[in-house]
Amino acid sequence: MPQLSSRITMLNEGGSDGWEVFYRARALVAAGEPVTELTIGEHDIGTDPAILQAIHDAARGGHTGYAMVPGVSALREAVASRITRRTGVPTTPDNVLITPGGQAALFAAHMAVLTPGDAALYIDPYYATYPGTIRAASGRAVPVATRAADAFLPRGEAIQAAARDTNAKSLLVNTPNNPTGMVYPQETLKEIAQACTDNDLWLISDEVYDTQVWQGAHVSPRSLPGMVDRTLIVGSMSKSHAMTGSRAGWLVGPTEAIDRLIDLATATTYGVPGYIQDGALFALEQGAGLEQQIAEPFRRRRDLALSVIEGQNTVKAIPAQGAMYLMLDIRATGLSGRDFAEALLDDHRIAVMPGESFGKSAAGHVRVALTVADDRLAEALHTLCSFAETKARAHA
Amino acid sequence: MPQLSSRITMLNEGGSDGWEVFYRARALVAAGEPVTELTIGEHDIGTDPAILQAIHDAARGGHTGYAMVPGVSALREAVASRITRRTGVPTTPDNVLITPGGQAALFAAHMAVLTPGDAALYIDPYYATYPGTIRAASGRAVPVATRAADAFLPRGEAIQAAARDTNAKSLLVNTPNNPTGMVYPQETLKEIAQACTDNDLWLISDEVYDTQVWQGAHVSPRSLPGMVDRTLIVGSMSKSHAMTGSRAGWLVGPTEAIDRLIDLATATTYGVPGYIQDGALFALEQGAGLEQQIAEPFRRRRDLALSVIEGQNTVKAIPAQGAMYLMLDIRATGLSGRDFAEALLDDHRIAVMPGESFGKSAAGHVRVALTVADDRLAEALHTLCSFAETKARAHA
Ligand SMILES: Cc1ncc(COP(=O)(O)O)c(C=O)c1O
Ligand SMILES: Cc1ncc(COP(=O)(O)O)c(C=O)c1O
Repeated sequence: MPQLSSRITMLNEGGSDGWEVFYRARALVAAGEPVTELTIGEHDIGTDPAILQAIHDAARGGHTGYAMVPGVSALREAVASRITRRTGVPTTPDNVLITPGGQAALFAAHMAVLTPGDAALYIDPYYATYPGTIRAASGRAVPVATRAADAFLPRGEAIQAAARDTNAKSLLVNTPNNPTGMVYPQETLKEIAQACTDNDLWLISDEVYDTQVWQGAHVSPRSLPGMVDRTLIVGSMSKSHAMTGSRAGWLVGPTEAIDRLIDLATATTYGVPGYIQDGALFALEQGAGLEQQIAEPFRRRRDLALSVIEGQNTVKAIPAQGAMYLMLDIRATGLSGRDFAEALLDDHRIAVMPGESFGKSAAGHVRVALTVADDRLAEALHTLCSFAETKARAHA
Repeated sequence: MPQLSSRITMLNEGGSDGWEVFYRARALVAAGEPVTELTIGEHDIGTDPAILQAIHDAARGGHTGYAMVPGVSALREAVASRITRRTGVPTTPDNVLITPGGQAALFAAHMAVLTPGDAALYIDPYYATYPGTIRAASGRAVPVATRAADAFLPRGEAIQAAARDTNAKSLLVNTPNNPTGMVYPQETLKEIAQACTDNDLWLISDEVYDTQVWQGAHVSPRSLPGMVDRTLIVGSMSKSHAMTGSRAGWLVGPTEAIDRLIDLATATTYGVPGYIQDGALFALEQGAGLEQQIAEPFRRRRDLALSVIEGQNTVKAIPAQGAMYLMLDIRATGLSGRDFAEALLDDHRIAVMPGESFGKSAAGHVRVALTVADDRLAEALHTLCSFAETKARAHA
């Protein structure tokens, strides 16, 4: 076999730790063992049958040929007005590229702004694919550390320093955040914008959880002064409409960038199935009601989870305001997130993600996905807390 | 706006000529003018309703969450046995990555084998996206010229010379061929294999037209001695099953390469809709009957077209043995392919692709897509031939 490219062999280099727990849990489930899986960011419901019907109707209606590479006009239009409404920045269909999912949008954005070898910043802890996405685009993946004491919010000075030290071309942020559940406050967004304008950075703003906010409000950094011309918004139907498997998302940015991104899409994906785009349009046209209905269980479970955590003193919760996760500080047990998660799976058949699998900053934490029924979640968290208490007592 | 990456701004550099005809034809159609469009490689039928029903059933059955990134097991299995059957080389699901379309497979293959700056060879004339695909992967796109007198079949010595001169890492070939309709004979395949082993090249073998062969047989170069460990087959449901809009394809290659390509897919696309994969599986399970039924009109129209061409002496046809195109030599008119196509659209509202839009080698030719009803195609070709005769007489 001739050599493979260095980009592809080093994609997972220095990769995150702790995915073994996830795979072990899956293997247990496959072997028929009952495991409470609180690992992956996927709804416990399928896609709404009305949306599936809209997809089918479009296909039956004949929309089965190549769709336009930039996306179906009506969907680009709908995304543009959604973004106009949410950011207050006038946005047209020419600012929109439809992509096969948010992940494809994250990749395309980095392809558009990085010349091979360029440094690209991202905030640690991070969504698991981020460093690999940057490396796939031949970029140098540079994490910007945060602190548990800051609830993992990035500090402007840390971004500024990393940008200067590496001569970075871009910064990737995510609010509402996976894995922390934090919704970035105005102050943080301002510092991010400042770092971008000071260092001439592209901002890649991952807003796939923008419909899941329990406290405060989601503000897109695109709406901040000086940011509209340097921000690429990553959006997706996955989380907002329980359409993870349909692979429908978008990029929103300056027209000149979108024009070039259409060239790139011609060479990388050649568009998104037209009938799925029609289904996505139908879903968006249902308005905020459907989005709230899909978000509601996570709001409820987050309250439920916090009330369980409040009943004891060993485990501390990062006070999540959005998304479908809760990050728990288990450092009082003296265990790493990984050892804690391994032992919890061994002893109680509960699977959570080690903080370490999202980067160095979240060591000593575990992430709980709020993706099982309320009573099962409450029970699992009670078990997790008593387990932590036992470990903490042994450690003390 | 900060700078965009050089890779994306130069994607279409030195781009093919003559797409204006295509866009002008589309604009005329949009304005309500009757145009016979013989431009794009898309069936004049939609996807079979039974396949659409299978897609819908899978979605309704609950296959709407994230699918496994490498692809649904049963589909990987079906592709593996298809390739085993067609190449005689034992192929397992571990040799298969499901991709969102053949174009995504072409891109992923180049991402896997090229380190930025590496030279990648492709045969001229070529499918329009090829050079952009290589550039998107930060490769140096190097065309290998062919001659009309050789029916545009590549010569081993030309590939060898280009590989040596550029220290190329890969060669991209396509049989049955778009735009020429040629099916590479054994002799050509042997020379290709020799060039690959002599120069330690990866072979990226685009076989998306493998069900459309009218004469001889499709032989995959993967089946040649020494080639199984250096060949990546690009396949697709688009042409074989009239599923262009569904974006379902695959890569087949050595397990070690596929393993790394799965990492890449995690960062670039995060899989293919599960319900579409289920529909693709259903389609493959229908066997050769459905494929022949979909291919049949192109076989019939190719015979029809050749019989029209035989009735005159100005226009010469490359004797296509496969795919959905016919390449016509119009050099007797003294016109470039582009000028010919422009004038034909102006005078007769018939749109064909200038040969130049597929590279320098096909100058003085036009490509006719066999994608309209038989009588309309025959009429358009009669008109094209008389038009060419008039031009040739004026030229003589
Ligand atoms: C922060 C974040 N961004 C992007 C994605 C990708 O979403 P998709 O590709 O399904 O749109 C995810 C999925 O988990 C995520 O958590
Ligand atoms: C030679 C060739 N390869 C690949 C493709 C891409 O096919 P798809 O991405 O629809 O699978 C085409 C489409 O026209 C083609 O002609």
